[in-house]
Amino acid sequence: MDFVPFDEAGNTSRLLDTKDGSFFDGIVKINRKAKPGPVVFLVSDGESSIDAVTKDSEFDVDDVVHLIGPVTERAGRKQIEIVRIEKSVMDFTKIIDKISIPKRTQFSIESKRYDLMKPRFIEIAKRIRKAILDNEPIFIRHHNDADGISSGVALELACMNMMKKVGVNPDHNLYRSPSRAPFYEVADVFRDLSSSKRITENHGQKKPLIIVADNGSTPEDLFALKTLKMLGYSVIVIDHHNPVQLFQVSENSFTSAVCPYLELHLNPYLFGLNSQTSAGMLCFEMARFIDEDFEFKLLPAVAAVADRCDIDESDRYIEMSGLSKEELLRVGVAIDFMAYHAKFDISTFVVKDLFEKKGFIDLINEEVRVGVETQLQSTMPYLRTLDINGITFSYIDLEKYTLRFTYPSAGKVIGLIHDKVAEGKESVPVLTIGLVSDMMIIRATRPILPVQRIIDLIKEKLPEANADGGGHECAGTVKFVPAHMDAVLQIVKDELHKIKVEPKEE
Amino acid sequence: MDFVPFDEAGNTSRLLDTKDGSFFDGIVKINRKAKPGPVVFLVSDGESSIDAVTKDSEFDVDDVVHLIGPVTERAGRKQIEIVRIEKSVMDFTKIIDKISIPKRTQFSIESKRYDLMKPRFIEIAKRIRKAILDNEPIFIRHHNDADGISSGVALELACMNMMKKVGVNPDHNLYRSPSRAPFYEVADVFRDLSSSKRITENHGQKKPLIIVADNGSTPEDLFALKTLKMLGYSVIVIDHHNPVQLFQVSENSFTSAVCPYLELHLNPYLFGLNSQTSAGMLCFEMARFIDEDFEFKLLPAVAAVADRCDIDESDRYIEMSGLSKEELLRVGVAIDFMAYHAKFDISTFVVKDLFEKKGFIDLINEEVRVGVETQLQSTMPYLRTLDINGITFSYIDLEKYTLRFTYPSAGKVIGLIHDKVAEGKESVPVLTIGLVSDMMIIRATRPILPVQRIIDLIKEKLPEANADGGGHECAGTVKFVPAHMDAVLQIVKDELHKIKVEPKEE
Amino acid sequence: MDFVPFDEAGNTSRLLDTKDGSFFDGIVKINRKAKPGPVVFLVSDGESSIDAVTKDSEFDVDDVVHLIGPVTERAGRKQIEIVRIEKSVMDFTKIIDKISIPKRTQFSIESKRYDLMKPRFIEIAKRIRKAILDNEPIFIRHHNDADGISSGVALELACMNMMKKVGVNPDHNLYRSPSRAPFYEVADVFRDLSSSKRITENHGQKKPLIIVADNGSTPEDLFALKTLKMLGYSVIVIDHHNPVQLFQVSENSFTSAVCPYLELHLNPYLFGLNSQTSAGMLCFEMARFIDEDFEFKLLPAVAAVADRCDIDESDRYIEMSGLSKEELLRVGVAIDFMAYHAKFDISTFVVKDLFEKKGFIDLINEEVRVGVETQLQSTMPYLRTLDINGITFSYIDLEKYTLRFTYPSAGKVIGLIHDKVAEGKESVPVLTIGLVSDMMIIRATRPILPVQRIIDLIKEKLPEANADGGGHECAGTVKFVPAHMDAVLQIVKDELHKIKVEPKEE
Repeated sequence: MDFVPFDEAGNTSRLLDTKDGSFFDGIVKINRKAKPGPVVFLVSDGESSIDAVTKDSEFDVDDVVHLIGPVTERAGRKQIEIVRIEKSVMDFTKIIDKISIPKRTQFSIESKRYDLMKPRFIEIAKRIRKAILDNEPIFIRHHNDADGISSGVALELACMNMMKKVGVNPDHNLYRSPSRAPFYEVADVFRDLSSSKRITENHGQKKPLIIVADNGSTPEDLFALKTLKMLGYSVIVIDHHNPVQLFQVSENSFTSAVCPYLELHLNPYLFGLNSQTSAGMLCFEMARFIDEDFEFKLLPAVAAVADRCDIDESDRYIEMSGLSKEELLRVGVAIDFMAYHAKFDISTFVVKDLFEKKGFIDLINEEVRVGVETQLQSTMPYLRTLDINGITFSYIDLEKYTLRFTYPSAGKVIGLIHDKVAEGKESVPVLTIGLVSDMMIIRATRPILPVQRIIDLIKEKLPEANADGGGHECAGTVKFVPAHMDAVLQIVKDELHKIKVEPKEE
Repeated sequence: MDFVPFDEAGNTSRLLDTKDGSFFDGIVKINRKAKPGPVVFLVSDGESSIDAVTKDSEFDVDDVVHLIGPVTERAGRKQIEIVRIEKSVMDFTKIIDKISIPKRTQFSIESKRYDLMKPRFIEIAKRIRKAILDNEPIFIRHHNDADGISSGVALELACMNMMKKVGVNPDHNLYRSPSRAPFYEVADVFRDLSSSKRITENHGQKKPLIIVADNGSTPEDLFALKTLKMLGYSVIVIDHHNPVQLFQVSENSFTSAVCPYLELHLNPYLFGLNSQTSAGMLCFEMARFIDEDFEFKLLPAVAAVADRCDIDESDRYIEMSGLSKEELLRVGVAIDFMAYHAKFDISTFVVKDLFEKKGFIDLINEEVRVGVETQLQSTMPYLRTLDINGITFSYIDLEKYTLRFTYPSAGKVIGLIHDKVAEGKESVPVLTIGLVSDMMIIRATRPILPVQRIIDLIKEKLPEANADGGGHECAGTVKFVPAHMDAVLQIVKDELHKIKVEPKEE
Repeated sequence: MDFVPFDEAGNTSRLLDTKDGSFFDGIVKINRKAKPGPVVFLVSDGESSIDAVTKDSEFDVDDVVHLIGPVTERAGRKQIEIVRIEKSVMDFTKIIDKISIPKRTQFSIESKRYDLMKPRFIEIAKRIRKAILDNEPIFIRHHNDADGISSGVALELACMNMMKKVGVNPDHNLYRSPSRAPFYEVADVFRDLSSSKRITENHGQKKPLIIVADNGSTPEDLFALKTLKMLGYSVIVIDHHNPVQLFQVSENSFTSAVCPYLELHLNPYLFGLNSQTSAGMLCFEMARFIDEDFEFKLLPAVAAVADRCDIDESDRYIEMSGLSKEELLRVGVAIDFMAYHAKFDISTFVVKDLFEKKGFIDLINEEVRVGVETQLQSTMPYLRTLDINGITFSYIDLEKYTLRFTYPSAGKVIGLIHDKVAEGKESVPVLTIGLVSDMMIIRATRPILPVQRIIDLIKEKLPEANADGGGHECAGTVKFVPAHMDAVLQIVKDELHKIKVEPKEE
């Protein structure tokens, strides 16, 4: 090895200041130990990481040591050649703890909603920063729609930036995957466990910190989250969906069914708020706290319009984005179109192109426009519409009357149909149902027959249909045993006959 | 290179004894040759492997050479810097052959069944050990249920241990994959061929030895096995399923339709035995022979109860496991649940958690309990039950009356339904059929109408239904052209009308 | 580093002549720059590539420099240790341009068709050679049938050969994937974009050149091709399918709807020719131009017979192959069978075995023979055949009457049925239709009712069926909204009643 006299580069106790030829003398924590043969430690002083090599050593991962030795650089990698290493009594946790505190803690916009949640924001950002400083890998799981992808990408980019700053390689420490289902399903958690074992058992890495974005708050997520807790994983959920099971603790403080299994949970419902601050908006602000240099003005604006968030915060983001609501919606449509077609882990840089390249966005929107027209033309003539008790009730078998493997999918088509039917019908309630073999998709203009009520009715009158599902008062999905499609539809019709609709005040 | 005088470490002719600074002088076989540039050989003395480097060399893979040179160690890898290399006349095959003989050849339990098969056990263990010593990669294919996964994992762990002992890297030499179908299907063999070509053509490795566990004995496996034989692969099958086509050679000695295409075949039917020693039990004992330090007491016990093996051997394993039959069954259910959801190559270490972590097992069993209840509630009211000639015959369209994408799957649900129907009906025969569009799943309490008889009947009366399938006297599956579901059901009913049931002796 | 005096090896300005100990002094172009730490350039003199290292450097990718330094070799990799590096004014483009010109430009057979397209052949071969010399990665996408796989494999092997010659590693620069659909579908282009970003963003490689073979010429490909153009990718299409939208520019010169989005497009229809020179034939000749040493006599012969190309060129290939047409067809069947079962990226070396190993081919053909027999036995009794106006019109619901997951697939079965029906019916037109829920597959012996006419009729009479599809006068596929299967069939029948068939001249 070519020796460079270190007086050229000088002594330092800060890893960030080391360079080829300098001499390190400081306190570090061991984050990885590679064997067999000469020992290669990955050590960190909290701010950044470096390899340190020695012939053999008793020290192990998580030991805090006083390290002395010259620094050399080969093929782009710096390393310390350990001359002396001894146990240190320094409380390293405190150092990491201090550096973990987010450097930026101002939201990008003024918001009373955000202010209410601010301590949770800081806690989570600190935990994620600590994971990176401690060399814990990070797995990000997110809902596979425009809001969910925005959430995942914001977190990924911020973690990537910080990892690079502190000398951690994102290629081996940062993973992001979409979930096909609108919750953290069984197959996903087995896949994550398997990936985790591969990096912990085969590559000696630490257990990953798992972050679930735009998913993870409802009872449907319980199995996955219980499993992870059981096996010793730390999980953070950042979501805005209604947790369904919500218990009040004190004023503006709630807890959900999944909370006991999470290390940290950010969801506006836990603060007495609603779903109007979408996960993409929350994750954007979180990303700014994780990495103080993170910026991506378009992202929260797209997430806001894509998830139909009609609050002041959305307006501020839209304003800051420099684009119109219509243009932002087109970005959301482009991301959603991609999510429909590419169910695999698509590169973040392709997503960035979808945000930023107008030509690409236009191309997709034109494709979608044609698809929408075709699906509406295929379905509208076969929509059955009835007037029941003053309610405009429509339904259609989507499996029969939509084109297969075509975007927009059957699930989205019913939304388009419902909007068409509701046009000019502001004075009466409109309820639209799409049927797909073992599923009923529901859209309504007014909460005359909430999704949960439909599920309860089917459970009561036809228990063997095993109805299940979710949603809120005006939109949702009910699944059931396929044989009962007609009976389930009849239950809805019967109930509509019993409902007394109050005339809407103008 | 920093030279360390070898007198510090001494001379040796045994690779296991080499260390940084020692000097090697011995006979080795070349197992890999990396080019271009300076030649890097991977050489083995039978016991273990090491890299040996030289500027250039005429010698090639499979040559046996006398090698002399100092040993150095860098970044955890030892290597010999070749000073002299010359052809050796030593019969290396004999050395490998000798070391290949299993060091442990006592079964973990006493068993007449095992004793009958013992020579085959030793032959196979020796062949697998030889593959590892010869640096042949190993591909393990197995059935994707609790017994099959136990089989694959036992073999994988034993090979992994031995590979580590002799200096072979399991990351590049050991692969395990579940087969979705209950046989070695066409897509699997193409995938294996493709993986094999990648390592042989792109990385200069040897052709892999292929081991098929809990699969591979029936005519359905013929295409895959013929293909592999044709292309020069060695295949070992360790299975306990009825080979269907079985030909007697001598007393207690049979051969099957697949035997001509295998290097070695272990199946109790080849010894006049039956399926009661499950593949997981066989592979557990095999794993102990491959690696003399292998232990995993829970594994054969779980395989035994999961595959309903009611023999003394099972009782011994259950006893040794320290768990009750009920607890072991719960482990089996957990593995089966994972297999249903995770169709990809799941890490062996996740499977280990499923064996060992009670909390994880409980969590899954609770999930399964709810699933079973739901599926039974959905189906039982719609089960059609007839009394034909004193036979309790029930059938149901599972596609209509079960919840989709829910564990237990339709195939398992019919087993649960059958058990419900049979409760308290010990005095009469019970036959239950589940229909799924192009398939009929059959369960019976007595062999009144064996699966093969049903297939033969359909072939005779409705040849264009192209009935096919498999199973045994009381359980199996029949596939047919979808249009004929009703006619196929009628054939079964008609036949039942003709059957004369003997009253069961109490 | 151990210094070897260079007088041993001598000076050179040609990278191909460098070896351990030689001294390089010449003009090169920088094709990659690896940072951080000491800079590692990948430099090329047009003919071949080598690493060149220095402590730090201002120069960047695409700079042309005069480089001086000794050459060393470690672990099989040569590198130049840069002593001096300075900007060169040499026009490197010209050098690359010159070396890019194909060295072989004679077709393997005489052909007026090929001669007409020759300038396009040379242009494309030159462009692909230039990509390799410039270190652009290459992505090959192809149709997943025998002709398409032959096309992709021919191009892959030729590029692989040339890459090895000029010192580019094919493992990181050459990718080949089949497309499931018979066009470049949305999911494929997102996958390719994602793969491209991974190598450009994570590994600092250049944007890949994308080659689409046996696909890519029709309006269905527009979205993918527009997207790639939009994002700055160069795409080459080598196809023989009818581009559907074709515009005459001058005599024997046409342009298609996709041309504006391609850098280069080879398709016989652009030269006034037809589909009879299959993509595999074209790609074989192209491969010979890309790499002057490329040979694979069987390949174009198999492509020719598999795609039923009845022209002189096919006869010449068949003759040169040394096999009979029947034997070549069996190779095609084997490749097609593999494509059906293995939808993933199968190793080229498995495909080579399918071309070359007779035993393997026989094994598959026997499997296919049984499959064909079974599918015909299942369907023929349920084929409805009518005589309408002297036309033999047959139809069948393939979903009901074929075995699932069995090769040949429903789509191929209708071809077999049609051939059966047409046997001995040379004097009357025969039209056969297979129905599969949302699709109608059409085969005819004479162009009495072209596929496009059927699509137009459905669009006119039943616009909400949203009929779409493709094909030519005697074969094709029509997709529609599933609910309308019966109505669509009726439209065909009604039209047949109106057709006046001219008696065929003998």
